[in-house]
Amino acid sequence: MASTAMMSASDPTVRASWTGLEGRLACRDGTIPGSTAGVADGYVQGNLAVFPERLADDFRLFAERNPKSCPVIGESRPGSRAIPDLGLDLDLATDVPGYRIWRNGAVVGERTEVADLWRDDLVAFVIGCSFSFEAALVEGGLPLRHVEMGVRVPMYRTSIPCVPAGPFAGQMVVSMRPLTPAQAIRAVEITARYPRVHGAPVHLARPDLIGIRDLGAPDYGDPVRVGADEIPVFWACGVTPQSVIASARPDFAITHAPGCMLITDRLNAEFAMA
Amino acid sequence: MASTAMMSASDPTVRASWTGLEGRLACRDGTIPGSTAGVADGYVQGNLAVFPERLADDFRLFAERNPKSCPVIGESRPGSRAIPDLGLDLDLATDVPGYRIWRNGAVVGERTEVADLWRDDLVAFVIGCSFSFEAALVEGGLPLRHVEMGVRVPMYRTSIPCVPAGPFAGQMVVSMRPLTPAQAIRAVEITARYPRVHGAPVHLARPDLIGIRDLGAPDYGDPVRVGADEIPVFWACGVTPQSVIASARPDFAITHAPGCMLITDRLNAEFAMA
Repeated sequence: MASTAMMSASDPTVRASWTGLEGRLACRDGTIPGSTAGVADGYVQGNLAVFPERLADDFRLFAERNPKSCPVIGESRPGSRAIPDLGLDLDLATDVPGYRIWRNGAVVGERTEVADLWRDDLVAFVIGCSFSFEAALVEGGLPLRHVEMGVRVPMYRTSIPCVPAGPFAGQMVVSMRPLTPAQAIRAVEITARYPRVHGAPVHLARPDLIGIRDLGAPDYGDPVRVGADEIPVFWACGVTPQSVIASARPDFAITHAPGCMLITDRLNAEFAMA
Repeated sequence: MASTAMMSASDPTVRASWTGLEGRLACRDGTIPGSTAGVADGYVQGNLAVFPERLADDFRLFAERNPKSCPVIGESRPGSRAIPDLGLDLDLATDVPGYRIWRNGAVVGERTEVADLWRDDLVAFVIGCSFSFEAALVEGGLPLRHVEMGVRVPMYRTSIPCVPAGPFAGQMVVSMRPLTPAQAIRAVEITARYPRVHGAPVHLARPDLIGIRDLGAPDYGDPVRVGADEIPVFWACGVTPQSVIASARPDFAITHAPGCMLITDRLNAEFAMA
């Protein structure tokens, strides 16, 4: 299966048609070198955050207290590289196409696998990702400007405080998609059905009220055009943990690199509320 | 029951505690001279629009094509003053505390009962009303500025075209409630569950995009304060039919007077989607 995947991986239609397992194996063997956007359509992808066990209780509590930015969809046992609920043969240390290594709150390296860094005391958290709700928005007929423009979604640090837990504290990071007001209302209705992948937006229309001075200068990702009849709509973003790691300064952590997600075997449709 | 109601009708708490039937009988006997706001909490109230039978098919089609502004919750048989599904002993010609009489698109009189005007060819439509979703907003912890200020909700004619049917055509009328962006998102989630009483908002944040030049000068109702951290949120309004009657100029029609609704026996909770 992986070799078939490798042969046709340059074709976006083929990549989109893969199962979660096929996409994950393609990431493992290096066939997907960068972003997992557009890979294995319909399957849930996740943000990754890995901490030493002594920090895991605090991070779990932080995530529970900030469910819109940190909706945990899977957690490993200490030392294990598997989360059976999320995927067959899933290996947390090899299946993400890009990892960031953190020491004392700073990124000290980027790697395509971290097997040699995995320790018996590491606990991994997988956090729902906007790729799932973006699929629902597209199915609902709504436009995604960053996809139209072929760039990464713009993300911004805000003044919205996260509820702290232990050393984990800081401000929410949000992603932004421009929509007309009527589309924004429809987008709230659609994404409210997906609380495990950030759910409904947290803010809209007035970036100044959440500390964003310039929509054209995102803190992560790329700027996108906002039409004269559009308003910016902001969703809580799974990059929030990385911003919080920078504040909490744990001595060691591993995360995914932006856009390089863990592809699971779970279907987006499983995560939709009735 | 009606006499008990009459004795204590000056007490808002008592009026709120009435059943739909008690509230309706109090309207019939003149105990409720004006607005039905705050009467029979928890019971659905409705806008009224009455036409000669030869216009009924067109109006029904108009309502079906414009479900956000004209969600029909009940319709009478020609000539009948009852809609059994909406209420026990309900009399369409006496139970609304204020009626408007229309001829050729203009209001020619306001009355507290219209029994002598009822004809064998009249068909009545009852249309869901924002009082139901406002109750849900309050239960959800959201503020209602016009209630805080003790005034009528501001309503505006917009540039949003209704989908026409026969002679019925015109622009949507909206009601406006100021909320913070986060409250607005929550309000979308809450009111989306009530499609039979206008449902989710139709617009927000940018009045200029729907032809509203001055929020301080509503076309119906009263202006309300919009805070510096708030945006205006607009819902389709059951006054739309009255605006459309003014355009369609039917030779005869009866409607409720603004704020003077038909109180039904149906519970708001019955109208909530799961």
